[in-house]
Amino acid sequence: MNDSYLKFVNSPFGERLARSLGLPKPEVLRRYRADRPEFDGLIAIGAGREPRLFDALAKLVASVGMTSVAHDSAPAWVPLATRHGLMTGRFEPAESGSAGKLAALLFDASGIEDSCQLEPLYRFFHDTLRSLGKCARIVVLGRPPEACASPRQWTAQRALEGLTRSLGKEARRGSTANLVYVADGAEHGLDATLRFFLSPRSAYVSGQVVRIDASAPENPAAAAPFDWRQPLAGRRALVTGAARGIGAAIAEVLAADGAHVIGLDIPSARDALDATIGQLHGSALTFDIAAPEAPAQIAAALDELGVDIVVHNAGITKDKTIAKMTEAAWQSVLDINLTAQERIDDALLAGGILRDGGRIVAVSSISGIAGNPGQTNYATSKAGVIGRVQSMAPRLRARGITINAVAPGFIETQMTAKIPLAIREAGRRMNSMSQGGQPVDVAHTIAWLAQPGSAGVTGQVVRVCGQSLLGA
Amino acid sequence: MNDSYLKFVNSPFGERLARSLGLPKPEVLRRYRADRPEFDGLIAIGAGREPRLFDALAKLVASVGMTSVAHDSAPAWVPLATRHGLMTGRFEPAESGSAGKLAALLFDASGIEDSCQLEPLYRFFHDTLRSLGKCARIVVLGRPPEACASPRQWTAQRALEGLTRSLGKEARRGSTANLVYVADGAEHGLDATLRFFLSPRSAYVSGQVVRIDASAPENPAAAAPFDWRQPLAGRRALVTGAARGIGAAIAEVLAADGAHVIGLDIPSARDALDATIGQLHGSALTFDIAAPEAPAQIAAALDELGVDIVVHNAGITKDKTIAKMTEAAWQSVLDINLTAQERIDDALLAGGILRDGGRIVAVSSISGIAGNPGQTNYATSKAGVIGRVQSMAPRLRARGITINAVAPGFIETQMTAKIPLAIREAGRRMNSMSQGGQPVDVAHTIAWLAQPGSAGVTGQVVRVCGQSLLGA
Repeated sequence: MNDSYLKFVNSPFGERLARSLGLPKPEVLRRYRADRPEFDGLIAIGAGREPRLFDALAKLVASVGMTSVAHDSAPAWVPLATRHGLMTGRFEPAESGSAGKLAALLFDASGIEDSCQLEPLYRFFHDTLRSLGKCARIVVLGRPPEACASPRQWTAQRALEGLTRSLGKEARRGSTANLVYVADGAEHGLDATLRFFLSPRSAYVSGQVVRIDASAPENPAAAAPFDWRQPLAGRRALVTGAARGIGAAIAEVLAADGAHVIGLDIPSARDALDATIGQLHGSALTFDIAAPEAPAQIAAALDELGVDIVVHNAGITKDKTIAKMTEAAWQSVLDINLTAQERIDDALLAGGILRDGGRIVAVSSISGIAGNPGQTNYATSKAGVIGRVQSMAPRLRARGITINAVAPGFIETQMTAKIPLAIREAGRRMNSMSQGGQPVDVAHTIAWLAQPGSAGVTGQVVRVCGQSLLGA
Repeated sequence: MNDSYLKFVNSPFGERLARSLGLPKPEVLRRYRADRPEFDGLIAIGAGREPRLFDALAKLVASVGMTSVAHDSAPAWVPLATRHGLMTGRFEPAESGSAGKLAALLFDASGIEDSCQLEPLYRFFHDTLRSLGKCARIVVLGRPPEACASPRQWTAQRALEGLTRSLGKEARRGSTANLVYVADGAEHGLDATLRFFLSPRSAYVSGQVVRIDASAPENPAAAAPFDWRQPLAGRRALVTGAARGIGAAIAEVLAADGAHVIGLDIPSARDALDATIGQLHGSALTFDIAAPEAPAQIAAALDELGVDIVVHNAGITKDKTIAKMTEAAWQSVLDINLTAQERIDDALLAGGILRDGGRIVAVSSISGIAGNPGQTNYATSKAGVIGRVQSMAPRLRARGITINAVAPGFIETQMTAKIPLAIREAGRRMNSMSQGGQPVDVAHTIAWLAQPGSAGVTGQVVRVCGQSLLGA
C-alpha cells in the first residue's frame, strides 16, 4: 500500500537527489477532498471549426466556478462566456518562468469534419501545453466516430484518440488527458462526465475515451436543482466484496456521495465488513456469491427496498501458468469473477429489484484487456466482464439502466503489496503518472458512473490505470 | 536493422552466458521460405461443446498436410479426420523431457454459449502447452461476440480474448497466440486466415483478434482450385512508399505471391524505387502523394489496366513534443500519412480504377493505438487511418472491396536504427517475442489481407508487434 519512492522523491533531499541522478519524479497526485475546492484555477478553451458544444461547456464552466481564457482558435468563446456571466479573458502564452498557470485545457473538436481541419488542435496544444500546471486536466471533446455522416468526418474524429493519448504521455507531472465523444443530442448529458474528468476525483484516469449518447431517457434528477456534492443522495447501492481494499473504498466513496450502502462479502469476512459498513451507517450482507442459491438469497434480502446501484467488485486471483494451474483454481476464479456477476444481475433484474434508471458497474481489469502471464483464469474472467457490459447495455437501455466496467491497472492494495519488489516497481512506474493508483481512484470512477447524470454512458470500459503503457 | 543481442544469445557461448545470468533469450523466429515446407509437424485439436467449425477445420488441416492429434476435449475429431483422409491420433501428454513435439494448437470454441462452459479451454491448454515446440502456433476459434444471440453467449465468447492474450504471453519461445472469430455462415471463408495464422508468415503477429464475416459475396477464386503458393497471381497491386524499408518488403512479398507490383514513391527516391521494382518486374511511378494534383495523376497513370490491391504504406515521422513542434511538421505528417490516403482512395474508387473485389490495406501504427510522446502528429494521423478503415469498410462491402489496417510495433528498419540504444533496446524487448520484427513480417500480413480468400476480413486493425506490451 506504500510507495516509498514517491514519498522520497517528493521530500526536499530526495527531489534534489532524483534531479541530479536523472531519476523519474512522480508527482504527488492531487486528490478530491471534501474540505477543499473541487475546481479552481484557469481553464483554457480551444476549438476547431464550428464548435457545437460551446453552449453546454459555457454552462458547465460557469457552474463549476472556474475562470476561463479563450485561445485564438476559439474567438466565439468570449462573447458566449460573457453571456453566461463567466469570468473570462484571452489566453496569453506564459512568459518563460511563469509557466504553470493553467489548471485545465478544454478543446471542442465537435465541428471537425475532415482530416484537413485538425490543425487548430495543433495550435491550441502547441500554445498552451507549456503553461499547464501540475495535476492539470486535458479534455478533448468530439463526436462519436461511428455515428458520423461521412467517412471523412468519422476518420477525423477517430484521429482525436491518437492525439489525446499522446498528449497524456507528454503532459506528465500528474496531468491527465481524456477524450469525450458527445453524441448529437446528448449535449444536456455531459455535466456529470465533464465534472469527473475536470475534478481531482479522476486523478488516476488518463488516456481514456468515453462516449455519451443521447438515447437514454431524460433524467428528471438531472433537470432539477442538483447538489453536486451529494450526487448519489437517496440512492441505495449494493457493493460486493466490500469488506476490504478496493471494495471498502468504493463503499466509503458511495456513502460520502450520499448513497445508502449495502456491503456484501463472504461470511468469513463478517467482522471486517461490519467495521467498514458500520462507519458508513450502511447495511451488511454475508453470502458466498458463487454458491448456487446466493443470487436468489441476495434478491430476497434486497427485495423490500430494492437497489439503484450494483457494484460487482468481488473477485479473487489464483495465479499460476496454465500448465501448472489446478482445475479448481481455474474454476473458482471464473465462478466468482464472472459467472456470479451474471447470475446476480439476472436475479436482480428479473425481480425488478434493481430499479429502472439503475446503474450497474462491474470491475474488470487491465489483465482482461491485455492478458497477463500467470493469469489465464483471471484474464478470461475479466475479459468476460467486458463482454457482459457490452452485451447487456443495449438490452437495459429501455429501462434506463446503464452497465459499465472499470478496469483498474496497478492499484496499491494488500494484493499488490505481495508482488516481488522488482516486478512491483515496474508495474508502478509503467504509466504516465509513474506511480500506482489508490483504491479511492477506482471508487471515484465507479461513483461517477453511478450518478443519475451518467445516463448517457453505458456499455463502456474505463481504465483506472494512470494511462498504463500496458494494453492491446 | 541489426539485433546483435538476438544473435549473441543464440550462439553456443551466448546461450550459456544468458542462461547463467538469467537474461531473456529471444528465439530466432522461424520465417517463411519458399524452399521449405510452410506447414509441418503435429497439430493438437481441442474443442468446447458442440464445435461448429470442425468440418471446415478438418478440410483445412488436410489441405495443409499437417498431422493432427485429438485432445480429450475433442472426441469428435478422430472419426471426422478419418473421413477427410487426415492422419490423426489421440493426444498424449509429452513425457517429461520429450516436450516440444507440437507445432500448433487449435481450439474450436464456437459452440460455447455460457461462461460456465469455458472449462474445456483450461483442460486443453493445461494439457498441451507444455508439449509445444518453438515458434509454435496457437489459434482459438470462436463466434463474433457482437453477433451472439444472448448476452451469456456474447460474454463467454468475449472472454476468449483474455485467455488468448494470456496464452501468448505464457507460451514464449517464439510462439504466437491469436483469436479468430468466425461468423455463422463464414465457415467457407476461413482458409486464407487460418493458413496465415498457422504459417511462419505470421511469425511476428500475436495477441491479435480477427473477425471473418459472412457478408462478403462468395469469391469465385476461392471456389476454383487455387495455388496457395501464388495467392495473388493475376492481381495488380499499387504500393506507396515502395522504394525502401517496409514498402520495399511489401513490394517483394506481393510479387513473390504472384502480383504485378506498381511501386510508387517520391521523385527524389526514383533510383531506389527503380532498383527495388526492377528486380520484381513491376512498374514504377513517382509522385509526391501530398500534392493536390497527385490523386488524379495516379488515377490517370493506372487507368488503363486498373488495380486490385492498394497498399497505403507511404508515411513520414517528424517527432517533437507538441510544444516544440513546428506547424509545418504537424501538417506534413497529417497530409502525407492520412489525408493523401483519403484523396487517393477517393480518386481510385470514383473512377472504378480499384476494381470490384479489390483490397485496400493501410499502414497504421501502434502509436496510433496507444499514443506516443513526441508523436502527436504521427499518432493523430495513424489513429485517423484506423477511422478510415472502420468508416469505409461498410460502404465498400457491396462492391466486394475490403479495407483493413496493419499496425506495426517495433520493426527493425533504418528508422528504428536511429533510436538511441537504451530506448531501442526497451522497444525491442517489450513484447512476447523479446525482439523487434522485420519488414517482411508486416509485408506478409498485408499479403494475407490482400488475398482473394480474405473477402470476409474487413474494417479491421491487425497489429504486427510480437504482442507488444504497449497498447491502450
